Amino acid sequence: MEKKKIQLVAEPLTAEGFAPFGDVIEADPNSENHFSINGGLIERFNDLATIDVTPEGGRPLINIAICNKATALPYHIVFLERHPLGSQAFIPMDDTPMIVAVAPAQDHIEPSDIRAFITNGKQGINYNRSVWHMPMAPLADGIKMLMIDRGGEGNNYEEFHFPDVDVHLDIPK
Amino acid sequence: MEKKKIQLVAEPLTAEGFAPFGDVIEADPNSENHFSINGGLIERFNDLATIDVTPEGGRPLINIAICNKATALPYHIVFLERHPLGSQAFIPMDDTPMIVAVAPAQDHIEPSDIRAFITNGKQGINYNRSVWHMPMAPLADGIKMLMIDRGGEGNNYEEFHFPDVDVHLDIPK
Repeated sequence: MEKKKIQLVAEPLTAEGFAPFGDVIEADPNSENHFSINGGLIERFNDLATIDVTPEGGRPLINIAICNKATALPYHIVFLERHPLGSQAFIPMDDTPMIVAVAPAQDHIEPSDIRAFITNGKQGINYNRSVWHMPMAPLADGIKMLMIDRGGEGNNYEEFHFPDVDVHLDIPK
Repeated sequence: MEKKKIQLVAEPLTAEGFAPFGDVIEADPNSENHFSINGGLIERFNDLATIDVTPEGGRPLINIAICNKATALPYHIVFLERHPLGSQAFIPMDDTPMIVAVAPAQDHIEPSDIRAFITNGKQGINYNRSVWHMPMAPLADGIKMLMIDRGGEGNNYEEFHFPDVDVHLDIPK
């Protein structure tokens, strides 16, 4: 049987649109979550993501991810992954956009549940624990991201495959 | 009484030199803490800092700090501060060096206890809980850093003043 083809175009990431899946980590001057510190030298944008990594004795890890090679577009979503024991944040360190596809934190998902977003280059994202998401697909060679996720015992990785559909994900023209 | 003058020049930051005070957060290809993920697309530099924020019910915060104005050099160290309830990490998001002055996590410190470091622009740092450090002093206007520190109840801020000495901190020529 031939696979059903689905075309998906990433939409611009906003905090509101991403709220069901996690946090957008950005310095939004229109938000109310910032204030001056160090005698006015520095503006602090405060508490931008919920780190949720303690089930089964986990602890937060700070990591750096360096992308060896850009992904080809359109990206074929063969499966989504999730981390049942921890949130996972990616923050760009060189102003490069990221493409993310997500689906709700439920045991069974359909291709129609998938939402896709493209960041503006300055935005980071934090996936809530158990939210399905595509593997990180770098849009340029050599880009660097800070990752904050979970360390500890237990199985923190699951995959959900879509054997009958071919989901092509692209960025807006 | 005239204050005693002390000149301090920051030394290049290394993981070894900073070890008594905290972690250097960097993607060091000579380290053994990295491995490939996502089918070889990404190199993960793993677990680069110890987040220590749980005393008295604390939790980790992800924040962005944007520097309004660069500090004049030499920097006059009037006091050091510390956070007795949490570690504090700063990671540059635009490849800008940071200057940091630190002293050991003990109740009384002397000016001779102060060590100063300059980062290479790509390095972040994580101050261990209760390590004395100067307030973040941005070396350029507009630079952006990711901060990971503690949220929660309790007094997480102390200062140690040096009333009798004038410590001038500068970067290497």
